Amino acid sequence: MSRWTLYTSPGSCALASHIALREAGADFELVKLDFGAGQQQSAAYLAINPKGRVPALVTDEGVLTETPALLAFIAQRHPRASLAPVSDDFAYARMQEFNSFLASTVHVAHAHKRRGARWADDPAAIEAMRAKVPQSMTACAQMIEECLTGPWVLGERYSVADGYLYTISGWLEGDGVDLARFPRIVGHHQRVGERPAVRQAVKEASG
Amino acid sequence: MSRWTLYTSPGSCALASHIALREAGADFELVKLDFGAGQQQSAAYLAINPKGRVPALVTDEGVLTETPALLAFIAQRHPRASLAPVSDDFAYARMQEFNSFLASTVHVAHAHKRRGARWADDPAAIEAMRAKVPQSMTACAQMIEECLTGPWVLGERYSVADGYLYTISGWLEGDGVDLARFPRIVGHHQRVGERPAVRQAVKEASG
Repeated sequence: MSRWTLYTSPGSCALASHIALREAGADFELVKLDFGAGQQQSAAYLAINPKGRVPALVTDEGVLTETPALLAFIAQRHPRASLAPVSDDFAYARMQEFNSFLASTVHVAHAHKRRGARWADDPAAIEAMRAKVPQSMTACAQMIEECLTGPWVLGERYSVADGYLYTISGWLEGDGVDLARFPRIVGHHQRVGERPAVRQAVKEASG
Repeated sequence: MSRWTLYTSPGSCALASHIALREAGADFELVKLDFGAGQQQSAAYLAINPKGRVPALVTDEGVLTETPALLAFIAQRHPRASLAPVSDDFAYARMQEFNSFLASTVHVAHAHKRRGARWADDPAAIEAMRAKVPQSMTACAQMIEECLTGPWVLGERYSVADGYLYTISGWLEGDGVDLARFPRIVGHHQRVGERPAVRQAVKEASG
């Protein structure tokens, strides 16, 4: 197996895959794109990922995108790291359910703050979307708070879902969510942030 | 294992899970919610799925939601139906990537037609979102058209991703997409629609 390459961008959801790779002890190269300079829309990057987004994981079998798919794949390819309950169908489905909710509901709600142009052209409409982000993200946080009954998303065992939640819960304050209402999310964020692999990924992502 | 129950609603993405269950030969009960009557927000249903959406799959281990999670779980629990490449990590990740893209990009683009109130309060903003749906869904269709190189999403083998694409490609014309530009998607939709399990699910879903 040749070395993988993860394409990422500071502040993006690609941090979740980056964390998973560090937790897995994977050997990979990290390439940071500068979204401010539009590098994700360069011809060179579009040849790698036509969606013009991150994350993208380049492997010798092909390029993979979409965070929930990457997280499950990274866990499967590094079984010794025990990053997903691969031998328990139902627990695995629970993990996938959580990751899918983060991707298709929570991340989407967040994206209406700065990426409104994906869904409307009118500047007033884009501003109206931005104005609702604190409300929609608070509703998402409420749903997550009620799910978090153990130290980790799946209860007693850490999984790739925890690095994903850590990534997204790091956006809540900036999205206008009152964190004092969500002590379990805050506790989870602190717990995940203390893990050596997470500290390393966070440092590499921002540096 | 006790009998599963799938909560669905006519015209919704829950058809993808319904198709997967029929392809799997699963023994399950189908419960159709009337969204027009607000049944998805009834106290009885919110006790099953606090998100107030479909699909929800009730199993003796718990309730599962989120289409990509359900599709992978249904395939895993019915290995003889061969609905997912469970023994090939990379092909499995490809399937998950496709399902995740449908859930978090394509379905989300579609939802801006009738569910704009999730992301803005201003009626003019909601109308501006609706107006952009033909454009954003056309861009999604273009991305899918370029991926479809074989008879099925994964090439030569049918998977749960095909029933999911069938479900969503059935929305394209109503979303203002010019299907003449997407012959592979049209061919795929016809091919999937001819499968006996799909015909049965479609009939049950609308009846």
